[in-house]
Parts: sequence; structure tokens; C-alpha cells
Amino acid sequence: MLLKIKRNERIAAMTRIMCSHPCQIFNLNQFSELFNSGKSTICEDIAIIRDTLLALRLGDLESVAGAGGGVRFVPRVDKRNTEEYISELCKSLSDPDRILPGGYIYMNDILHNPQQIYKIGEILASRFMDVRPDFVITVETKGTPVAIMTAFSLGCPVVVAGRNGNVTEGPLVSINYVTASSRRIQTMSLSKRAVKEGSRALIIDDFMKGGGTARGMAQLLKEFNVDIVGTGVVIATREPQVKLVSSYTSLIMLEQVDESERKIELSPADWIKSI
Amino acid sequence: MLLKIKRNERIAAMTRIMCSHPCQIFNLNQFSELFNSGKSTICEDIAIIRDTLLALRLGDLESVAGAGGGVRFVPRVDKRNTEEYISELCKSLSDPDRILPGGYIYMNDILHNPQQIYKIGEILASRFMDVRPDFVITVETKGTPVAIMTAFSLGCPVVVAGRNGNVTEGPLVSINYVTASSRRIQTMSLSKRAVKEGSRALIIDDFMKGGGTARGMAQLLKEFNVDIVGTGVVIATREPQVKLVSSYTSLIMLEQVDESERKIELSPADWIKSI
Repeated sequence: MLLKIKRNERIAAMTRIMCSHPCQIFNLNQFSELFNSGKSTICEDIAIIRDTLLALRLGDLESVAGAGGGVRFVPRVDKRNTEEYISELCKSLSDPDRILPGGYIYMNDILHNPQQIYKIGEILASRFMDVRPDFVITVETKGTPVAIMTAFSLGCPVVVAGRNGNVTEGPLVSINYVTASSRRIQTMSLSKRAVKEGSRALIIDDFMKGGGTARGMAQLLKEFNVDIVGTGVVIATREPQVKLVSSYTSLIMLEQVDESERKIELSPADWIKSI
Repeated sequence: MLLKIKRNERIAAMTRIMCSHPCQIFNLNQFSELFNSGKSTICEDIAIIRDTLLALRLGDLESVAGAGGGVRFVPRVDKRNTEEYISELCKSLSDPDRILPGGYIYMNDILHNPQQIYKIGEILASRFMDVRPDFVITVETKGTPVAIMTAFSLGCPVVVAGRNGNVTEGPLVSINYVTASSRRIQTMSLSKRAVKEGSRALIIDDFMKGGGTARGMAQLLKEFNVDIVGTGVVIATREPQVKLVSSYTSLIMLEQVDESERKIELSPADWIKSI
């Protein structure tokens, strides 16, 4: 417990604490005790923070009723800002120096840049906030950072399906699945203790071409009797238009990669352009 | 530009913006324009936020002089809070249900929990803030989430060394290295375009037994003429006491795992107990 501190100071501290723990519920008594202030004073502080975040489109504070209730910071990204950010990302990714043999695109500098994926995670989390996933699932390895940051903003854990069995996971459930593009049979496995039966999963990955990997994750989750509440990827290719999953959200559409002309064409997904 | 808003509101907004972008420099003019306020007013706001963060041990705001100067949020964890947190983590990890065949410990629930690794990343970042790494390096796959969060708090990118070559990385530099414990030869590779010659690297991993993997990363970085400014791991084993790397920092010491007695013994690292 501290000496009584001023409103300004309480607001700085509460904003730091809540924004660093997205979607975690803070009981008002915690703040009351920390600042040696009455609950009504804390409520006024929270109203000021909420109004400011909403006005500047930096997120929201939501009240949670009931016994375990309190207040939680919910990241909600600004739509105009999202469109600008994704357009910039498209521009950066269309640099011809990114083209690798086979028409692949080098994008690890973005997928491993914590600030970039924090932002991408916030956008994906905002999109899927209302379907209330219990956990995010991805398959190793490249989708992991984006999945981690999306889950951070959603305030839920991540489960990583493996391509090979691993001694440090305990008993596994494995399936074989077929990649849509190369028609190869692959194995994907998930630790039994990582997933709770009957919970709600959000599938997150970096890239989707035919949708085989996402469908593989869906098949794997079926073994755990888990509901899939959404599928989100950073980039989806325009072709094939019909994917192996019925619905998904991508941030970026990869129109085409022309290796001989050294040209990459990307655009923000339609739902981003229309917001 | 907004209508003039109150100090309370500026403080809420600035705290949210800076704390979500650790170590990123914000120019005071940016805030001046955003809030339609004078620079001296913004400076007063920043002083209030800084004093509050320091008083409550929630971090620091640092002024950066010069042309590209401004102010940046630096996560600095509270020492007592760190000791409590790490002690709790030791308790949670010593649950005998975590023991897997071969004496391995199941800890993916922690390594894939964004809130836990955000905290762990803040602790590691606080420890290595002053050696100013240009990037964090880890080797796929289990260390990646901790490395991402450590780099997020340090405000720098992550580079992930691969166990197998990957078509989406472009030209690679590969080395063979020997694991200390099983004396097996393994391959580790790094994308040429991921690392800048002459920069400063911080090695981060989840687990260290003999130190073979960390030494492998050091050998790989030597090919890039990169300085290693530190090595940090979440858990290090007590035995062997002499590791293949000369210096490292771990948060937790794994004293022993007794598979037949179903007992795991862990303790906070000495430097945490003594702070």
C-alpha cells in the first residue's frame, strides 16, 4: 500500500498495468488497495481512461460483472489506421528482392519482428475478439510468433501442433493430412494435455495457399471435440480461390508472384478495404 | 489533430502508446501534434508518467537526446516482484505430473502462455537492457516464444536459426555442432539476409543442459562477424556445472528430476535470490 497518490498518477499506473495484460480482469479492489483510494474514485479514473482510449481509438476498457468481475483492457484497432498499416505492409512485401527461387517470398523479417507481429496480432485479435476463443492453435514453426501475439491480445493461451513427435510433450494425438498444393501426406500432432475437451479454438497461421494445413488443424481438433470459432492468416493466395476450409480471414491477398518478371502483387483483403 | 484534451487524458493515451511499444523512441512533436498541446506541457506529462512508473516499479521513461531523440518506455522489472514470480514458477513447474518418460519436464503450457512469457521476456530484457543488443537469436522451435517476447521488451528484432534448411529463407549459412549431453552431431542454419555483419546479438533459449546449442549459435554467429553480448535461458540444469558456454544467465536452476521418486526440484537462480 502506498501513500495516497494523485489521479494523474493513478491513471498512468492503471493504464500501464491493464494495457500490458490485455483481456485480463482486474478487480477494482486490487486498484483500491494499491492506491489507497476509494472504489468510487477508481471508477472515475477508469471512466477517464476508457473515454480516452475510445476517443483516440486505442482500445477499450470493458466492465465484467459478477463474482470474478472487474475491468479489462480490450485491444480494438482503429479501422483507418489498420488499412494504412496493411497497405504499407503490402508495399514492403512487394519488394522484388523478396522473391526466392520457386516463387516463395522472404518475409521472416516481418514475421520475426515483435513490433510488427504485435500490431498484426492486435488486428487479428480485434477481428476475433467477439467469438471468444479459449485458445489459439497454430502449427510449427513460422506461424508461432503471430499466434503468440494474437493470443496475447486475446488474453488466452496458444497451443502449437507439431510436425514431428516431441519427447517433451507427453502423449500425443496424431493425424495424417494432405497438403492442398503439393498433395503430399504430412503428419501433425498435438499434446493430449495441451487441449481441453469441449473448448473453443481459433486457428492462426502465417500463410494459406490451398488451406490443407488449416484443414489438418481442424481435423486434429475434431479428435479433441473442440469447436473452431475462426481461422485467421496473415497472407492468403488469390489462387486457388476455393480453399480446403470453408471460411477464413486473411489480412493480405497475394495476387501473384512472377519469378521471371520479378514482380510480387499483393493487396489488403477486401474486408479491410471496405472498413 | 484533436481538440485540446485534459492532462489526465493525455497521460492515459501516452502511457498506452508508449507501453505497447517498449524501447521505441517517440518524438515529443508527435505527441504535441496529436494532443494539440505545447511541448512544455507534454514534458510535464512525461515527467508525471516517469515518476509514477518508477515509484511503482512498473518501468521507466528514458529521454533520448539528439536528432532522432525523444522519449521511450523501458521495461524494468521490480526485483521483489521478480523473486516472487520466479518462486511461483518453480512451484508450478515442480508438480510431479509434469514428469515425462526420460526425465523430461512438460512446460509447454508455460512456454506457450503469452502472459507468462511476456513476464519472462520482461525479466530477461531488464537483465540485458544495458548491453544494448541489436537483435535476439534463438533456435527453433521451443525457445521462439520467449525470444519473441524478450525482443518485444528490448524493442529489437528476432532471428530464428533453423534445424533444417527452409525454402523460404533464401541463402543460408549452416554449421554442424555437437550437443553436449548426447554427443550427437546436429545442423543449425541461419538466413544470410537475416543478420547484419558487425551487429550485437543476445542469445535466448528456453532450456540449457550442457550448453551445446548455445555454443552452436555462437559458432554460427561467428560466421557473420557478430558480437555476442549475452546468453539468457529460462531454465538451466545444475549438472553439468561446467557448460560449453562460459557465461549465461538463467532464471531457474533445475536441481534434479527423479523419475522413479516422481520428484522435481527447482529453485530461482542465485542472482534472483540475492536481489
